[in-house]
Amino acid sequence: MSSTKDSLVREVAEKLPSSGNKITVVGIGAVGMACAFSVLTQNVSSEVCLIDCIPDKLAGELMDLQHGSNFLKNPKLSAGTDYSLTVGSRICIVTAGARQREGESRLDLVQRNTDILKGIIPKLVQYSPNTILLMVANPVDIMTYVAWKLSGLPKNRVIGSGTNLDSSRFRFLMSQKLDLAPTSCHGWIIGEHGDSSVPVWSGVNIAGVRLREINPAVGTPEDPEKWNELHKMVVDSAYEVIKLKGYTSWAIGLSCADLASAILRNESSVHAVSTSVIGEHSIDKDVFLSLPCVLNANGVTHIVKQILTPTEISQLHKSANLMHEVQTGLKF
Amino acid sequence: MSSTKDSLVREVAEKLPSSGNKITVVGIGAVGMACAFSVLTQNVSSEVCLIDCIPDKLAGELMDLQHGSNFLKNPKLSAGTDYSLTVGSRICIVTAGARQREGESRLDLVQRNTDILKGIIPKLVQYSPNTILLMVANPVDIMTYVAWKLSGLPKNRVIGSGTNLDSSRFRFLMSQKLDLAPTSCHGWIIGEHGDSSVPVWSGVNIAGVRLREINPAVGTPEDPEKWNELHKMVVDSAYEVIKLKGYTSWAIGLSCADLASAILRNESSVHAVSTSVIGEHSIDKDVFLSLPCVLNANGVTHIVKQILTPTEISQLHKSANLMHEVQTGLKF
Amino acid sequence: MSSTKDSLVREVAEKLPSSGNKITVVGIGAVGMACAFSVLTQNVSSEVCLIDCIPDKLAGELMDLQHGSNFLKNPKLSAGTDYSLTVGSRICIVTAGARQREGESRLDLVQRNTDILKGIIPKLVQYSPNTILLMVANPVDIMTYVAWKLSGLPKNRVIGSGTNLDSSRFRFLMSQKLDLAPTSCHGWIIGEHGDSSVPVWSGVNIAGVRLREINPAVGTPEDPEKWNELHKMVVDSAYEVIKLKGYTSWAIGLSCADLASAILRNESSVHAVSTSVIGEHSIDKDVFLSLPCVLNANGVTHIVKQILTPTEISQLHKSANLMHEVQTGLKF
Amino acid sequence: MSSTKDSLVREVAEKLPSSGNKITVVGIGAVGMACAFSVLTQNVSSEVCLIDCIPDKLAGELMDLQHGSNFLKNPKLSAGTDYSLTVGSRICIVTAGARQREGESRLDLVQRNTDILKGIIPKLVQYSPNTILLMVANPVDIMTYVAWKLSGLPKNRVIGSGTNLDSSRFRFLMSQKLDLAPTSCHGWIIGEHGDSSVPVWSGVNIAGVRLREINPAVGTPEDPEKWNELHKMVVDSAYEVIKLKGYTSWAIGLSCADLASAILRNESSVHAVSTSVIGEHSIDKDVFLSLPCVLNANGVTHIVKQILTPTEISQLHKSANLMHEVQTGLKF
Repeated sequence: MSSTKDSLVREVAEKLPSSGNKITVVGIGAVGMACAFSVLTQNVSSEVCLIDCIPDKLAGELMDLQHGSNFLKNPKLSAGTDYSLTVGSRICIVTAGARQREGESRLDLVQRNTDILKGIIPKLVQYSPNTILLMVANPVDIMTYVAWKLSGLPKNRVIGSGTNLDSSRFRFLMSQKLDLAPTSCHGWIIGEHGDSSVPVWSGVNIAGVRLREINPAVGTPEDPEKWNELHKMVVDSAYEVIKLKGYTSWAIGLSCADLASAILRNESSVHAVSTSVIGEHSIDKDVFLSLPCVLNANGVTHIVKQILTPTEISQLHKSANLMHEVQTGLKF
Repeated sequence: MSSTKDSLVREVAEKLPSSGNKITVVGIGAVGMACAFSVLTQNVSSEVCLIDCIPDKLAGELMDLQHGSNFLKNPKLSAGTDYSLTVGSRICIVTAGARQREGESRLDLVQRNTDILKGIIPKLVQYSPNTILLMVANPVDIMTYVAWKLSGLPKNRVIGSGTNLDSSRFRFLMSQKLDLAPTSCHGWIIGEHGDSSVPVWSGVNIAGVRLREINPAVGTPEDPEKWNELHKMVVDSAYEVIKLKGYTSWAIGLSCADLASAILRNESSVHAVSTSVIGEHSIDKDVFLSLPCVLNANGVTHIVKQILTPTEISQLHKSANLMHEVQTGLKF
Repeated sequence: MSSTKDSLVREVAEKLPSSGNKITVVGIGAVGMACAFSVLTQNVSSEVCLIDCIPDKLAGELMDLQHGSNFLKNPKLSAGTDYSLTVGSRICIVTAGARQREGESRLDLVQRNTDILKGIIPKLVQYSPNTILLMVANPVDIMTYVAWKLSGLPKNRVIGSGTNLDSSRFRFLMSQKLDLAPTSCHGWIIGEHGDSSVPVWSGVNIAGVRLREINPAVGTPEDPEKWNELHKMVVDSAYEVIKLKGYTSWAIGLSCADLASAILRNESSVHAVSTSVIGEHSIDKDVFLSLPCVLNANGVTHIVKQILTPTEISQLHKSANLMHEVQTGLKF
Repeated sequence: MSSTKDSLVREVAEKLPSSGNKITVVGIGAVGMACAFSVLTQNVSSEVCLIDCIPDKLAGELMDLQHGSNFLKNPKLSAGTDYSLTVGSRICIVTAGARQREGESRLDLVQRNTDILKGIIPKLVQYSPNTILLMVANPVDIMTYVAWKLSGLPKNRVIGSGTNLDSSRFRFLMSQKLDLAPTSCHGWIIGEHGDSSVPVWSGVNIAGVRLREINPAVGTPEDPEKWNELHKMVVDSAYEVIKLKGYTSWAIGLSCADLASAILRNESSVHAVSTSVIGEHSIDKDVFLSLPCVLNANGVTHIVKQILTPTEISQLHKSANLMHEVQTGLKF
């Protein structure tokens, strides 16, 4: 007897396995799920695969997303512990890693997370040799370097979410101080995602008007308006949010969706992401740090050469040296 | 000395407090935050207020959303324990309530949640007398009745999220069985959100073709294809997801954003939501149950009169009687 | 001397030519431009190529779209008379053709438009051998057949926009009569896009309630409420709009963007599009007509077998015979 | 006998007339329709009213949009010659006016268009006393002044679309020259929309890096890279597009939708729009010109005080004097 399905529809051609815009998220903690949900709700991709090592949680998150697929314009969703599910991913967002604990510095997490990546990165590349890796696990700059080493991919296709989020936090804080929309507040945080990030005060502007043209002390210790507190608040943001709600999720999810959109749409838009910086600003160490980068379908194709002050450059070098030191001690 | 802000912009008129599309979310657990995040990412509203009784968690969730506001087109965000923040809300989504425990029936939660609502609903109405209440806390049908009683609002402006989610789950499961997109699978789950919900098998269709025209046994115990297992899976969904990941969040968040969108856009689209059903299908008890309702800027303005079988009607009556019994025992 | 560009950005990798979601629109009259603009504004694709034979108009439309690219999230846009620009298109929307004149039947246009397609289709396939052709030029059912013949592509990848628009018009008219949202009004127009289209009254429903369950005469000449006037209005729609504003544009543009979205997102959603119908509903002619079809990345992969009345089937056969007759006389 | 509608749905409350986000478009030529279609497809508003004086064209455009409402999430659409249809509009976009002819300067159009506005503006304000007027008809700066005079509204609620479009064109041209996304290219065109607009070269930047820091001659006649040609191309854009395709439409439509979105979402984002500039940059004439303005639910609430060169200020004064002269001769 023929089934209801067979009586209802007649097949005239085979389905294709993929839409061509598949995104895999590895690690389905709060960060990974916020990435997946942002990618789906922001209409970045119609095909999302979740990978983790906890089958129950995977099944639960998958079901919960599937139950909403009617509201999400019919995405293709999959989840599991087997990396063969990731085949053909355009982007792999890697959030797996031990979560930063309250008070823990990002650097303490390194070796622990390197060992975790050894079990992840080679499998991702095996099933999606043309993928772009978007690293989120902290300390993200070193983890991006580690992922690049483990992947064998060209540098342009291994990207750290880096200070795209720090810059977004900075723009929000500017918007509060100036009572303007965040998207109209322009400022860049570069360097290390974390305690030693560098705010490029010289370029901070509204409609092309630099704050330093109005108040030359902006960002310096001499500034009576204490704009430098904004950077301190950016640095403290992750610690603060973790202290208050236990983890960060929404903003990092949206930040990754923003980067993924620039890649899948082949936009060539500029974002502060962690990339190989050897040779930039006289950095002579093979490390990854965030600089304004041109993002498109081939990953990072260009780096914007900002004009930095000697202090800013020295801060970058300090971060680079610190990272290089940590990297040297890593066991692959 | 004038500040950088004063030197940067000149005020020519005052700002207005609201965009006119404000949505308040009461209760910022996993469900509430998924509602808030869905409302923002699905572009339903540009103004969201979070209310709860835990200041730290409120501050953390607010910061986390604010840090993403650059990616969300500059929404207005607020959070706090003080209901005066909710002033002028078009919709209040109430997710506050004790969470359903693994294995706990929805009905067990009633009196606990009624007491919670007594501290919430009157304050919401005080600050937003024209608001529409969208109830999510379980058991949602009784909680919607309770909210209506406590609010003094007309019935059309007190709505339970009801079986909009159950119907979405059902359509996803249909889509799996038929290998079609969920939005092309049409079926309605009505009645109580929970164990005694009613699938209206007679109307289940694809492109207007009823499954029962192909297989008259669909949904009955005699069906060799066991379509009725889909309804069982819908009923078990919440329990299953809670068991696997600890709570439900994404799908209920999207479901509420879908309902809020229909309201704010004044769509008059049809959704299965919990509404006052006395007089419908010969129900003679003053209870709330889900039926297909027309949703627009005035809330539920019409109820679709489905043609139900005697069995389906009797299932509705059974739910109505059960609820009425519980409601009778409630202490307001 | 190095240029400002070279001083501003350093290249670290090459750009890729395409995002992988390219859509070409052939013919940039009102219909073609509405398709292109809908595809861009509805976020269906980030890469659109315009082809026509009038260089000035092409340059003007391209510039006008480019000037808005800041508001459209940086799409890649191109335009020209040279088909090499279309290389790698996932979908080609073909609107080129002599426009239907006021009062002219769609069938009168056939040979004129066939000759035009001879100069278009082979070139599109040459540069994008894996493309899906979405035919819009009228009479669309015959033109889709012609395009299939000229293309050498498998039938599932040659699709006519068909009665997707007629069905949308029908749903709008239902929504007016019932005072409900169009998306909640379910009804299908199948068969020939044009004078002899077939409304499948039996399946017309709201929330699964068939109008014929309420009023068995719906759609028949005996109906005192004259629902069949809705179908007449659908048939007259194109003539009426052309008479009033000179051409149709917005609705057909949105209809094509809807179909393109289903394809690029690999949705497997059901749409009424023109497809090869030999063997369906006992049709024994090799013609294209609209039936509810499953659309995804491989084009039309399934056809929904609606349960039609003898009258409806006979209307389909009549259309099929008429088309076959015209096709037999065509000179390729 | 009860109708099918009455048998299908039971009314439990009245519908409300409006969603609260209504936008009226006056003038349904190519520009007006591109505005309306952009507002609908960019999800700016769910309620659009079209006003013009040609009933047939109005009926045709309305039908064409309505036929697509199934794809646009059920907007409320209306059209007619009677201004009572516009009641309760949050924004009125006024595109009515004689179209700029090929080669015609914008200033030649003034008196013709003033007479047209006399029949429009008072009626709009009568039916929507709290509305914001968004003027598009050219010469837009003078027409905005005229509309303000005719309206009796406070200055912050009468806005000209101004150089928001010129700035978008400029950013696109920058993006072409630098091979970057337009949204990452920051530059502002201010002053008169048209021949005497002013590019603020000093602020032009990528990621905060000013082009003048790299090449101090940018924008000057001495620049070997001839960046000033970009401004010339911006000035010529409208003429060029009109010459090539007969009119401009898409970019101006998207520009207006962008401004309307900032207003309805209460964003406080910064846009170059035409506003009252007396007192700004020492301008002593009561004229409207574009400057970067903060846009939100109360219209223009702040003006950004850019730091301009003497040459730029003198260009603004020249425009202001020219406009004042024309305005002095106007007959109201």
